[in-house]
Amino acid sequence: MQLKVLLVAGTHGNEINGIWLFEQWEKSPFLINTHGIKTYKVIGNPEAKKAGKRYIHNDLNRSFKEESFLSFNSSNFEEKRANELVKIYGISGQNPCKIALDFHTTTASMGSCLVVYGRRGADLALAALIQNKLGLPIYLHESDEKQTGFLVEAWPCGLVVEIGPVGQGVLNSKIILQTKLILENLLEQIQKVNNLNLLFPDKLTIHRHIKSIDFPRDEEGNIDGYVHSLRQSKDWQPLKKNDELFYKLNGETIRLEEDEPYIPVFINEAAYMEKNIAMSFTKRELWIFKQEWQQSLIDLIMIN
Amino acid sequence: MQLKVLLVAGTHGNEINGIWLFEQWEKSPFLINTHGIKTYKVIGNPEAKKAGKRYIHNDLNRSFKEESFLSFNSSNFEEKRANELVKIYGISGQNPCKIALDFHTTTASMGSCLVVYGRRGADLALAALIQNKLGLPIYLHESDEKQTGFLVEAWPCGLVVEIGPVGQGVLNSKIILQTKLILENLLEQIQKVNNLNLLFPDKLTIHRHIKSIDFPRDEEGNIDGYVHSLRQSKDWQPLKKNDELFYKLNGETIRLEEDEPYIPVFINEAAYMEKNIAMSFTKRELWIFKQEWQQSLIDLIMIN
Repeated sequence: MQLKVLLVAGTHGNEINGIWLFEQWEKSPFLINTHGIKTYKVIGNPEAKKAGKRYIHNDLNRSFKEESFLSFNSSNFEEKRANELVKIYGISGQNPCKIALDFHTTTASMGSCLVVYGRRGADLALAALIQNKLGLPIYLHESDEKQTGFLVEAWPCGLVVEIGPVGQGVLNSKIILQTKLILENLLEQIQKVNNLNLLFPDKLTIHRHIKSIDFPRDEEGNIDGYVHSLRQSKDWQPLKKNDELFYKLNGETIRLEEDEPYIPVFINEAAYMEKNIAMSFTKRELWIFKQEWQQSLIDLIMIN
Repeated sequence: MQLKVLLVAGTHGNEINGIWLFEQWEKSPFLINTHGIKTYKVIGNPEAKKAGKRYIHNDLNRSFKEESFLSFNSSNFEEKRANELVKIYGISGQNPCKIALDFHTTTASMGSCLVVYGRRGADLALAALIQNKLGLPIYLHESDEKQTGFLVEAWPCGLVVEIGPVGQGVLNSKIILQTKLILENLLEQIQKVNNLNLLFPDKLTIHRHIKSIDFPRDEEGNIDGYVHSLRQSKDWQPLKKNDELFYKLNGETIRLEEDEPYIPVFINEAAYMEKNIAMSFTKRELWIFKQEWQQSLIDLIMIN
């Protein structure tokens, strides 16, 4: 089986930079250097894009669950779309793709980063290659029962690329060029694995998800404090005990009570407000690169 | 007739900072210093706010037109809402307000500014007072046949306050505090006029609207270039001939061809993409303050 890679933009309909880049690429096939890799590029949620919204019924990037796949005749737009994408591009689909790369943007000042879900060896190996090349931080999202059903989890290997800050519905030069850069580097590294032509790094730095915290809320559940000005746009900057997190207009400052060197990410991501997430805490860890991850990625790519 | 001022936030449902400030104020009546002015605070478009969108059917802030007021049984949500607001808070309404202050946010890097529509004396007098106090730029929106029906035009005196940059749906500390500051200063200045206790400035600086320009588009009408990185976030910074405006991924840079010292505003405001506006050009002018504007504002406020 020839190696095929699924490229997704607009899994969230109001994250328009990747969508726009893909549209330009469609018109100018040589715009992106695919390094000879066969790719399929799709707009994840075209209906939501038309509506200028993140999603129609449910977050598509939480809809890749077994329940969704069992309800093929669902009237839920995103459940149907998740089914359709897996049917067409899933590993057992019509155009079977082994790897899925899902391009997102965030309103948080995250710069560019990679997100991996769980500890699948092939994901970690690919993420390590990109970190080695471009220096991007890796956010390991795990142990979060409230957040499941991510798109890339439905493929044997997959990464999310998150780039910010950019407002929803805003086309931004930096975000577009970063998306293009990371896309081309991902394809280049995949091609090098395919040619058995690369060295894997010895180590990788992981920001491991610990927990997410909500905005302060009043007795009726309404948000009654905002992200503190000292915390806004300070993604990836380590916290210490008593650091400011939120501020209320009655003068109250809400501080970090724990004595843990948390590193906050997704600070004030607009779309997470409805998920009761004001920011997430991670811990920075230096991991030894495991031989089995490399083998896992090589096996996936090389073996028919 | 006692002086009553209408305060509006959330005329666009996804501009949430003013809405949130008003909600906090509702819970804590002493949060805002109203300087003794009787105010009514309303959420302009509560349905759009619930939906997390700018509007349901049409932009509410383009719906205050005679046509809208003639179609009271319209099924268009915003036409109905415009009617309703005028019926309740209009100068001949149930709670007649002489002045309307409409609080907005923008994804453009505008900082804080005031927008006046046309050259009504009372508007210019009030704007001049705030410029004198806080130094805010004044954007005079006029001569734009495609953009009409603004909320504040339905009141004898009214200003829009625009604050940015902030993404749609993002709660931001700076934006909230700026909104509060400008709101309180507006009420303070109005109260001083009411008490005949102030001096008007001799001059005011106006950024007069000249025209808006669209994104570059291909033969099918799709946007095929983005705001140039040298133009992004450079609101209020004068242009000169050949300055970069847009960039296309084929390497083409689109430049200002005219030899006019335009000053761009609303650069890359997300909501204006659908209005075919990538940015607007203004000219900066120093105007002599006219005695008649002052009289117009004083008459409006003092005379029953």
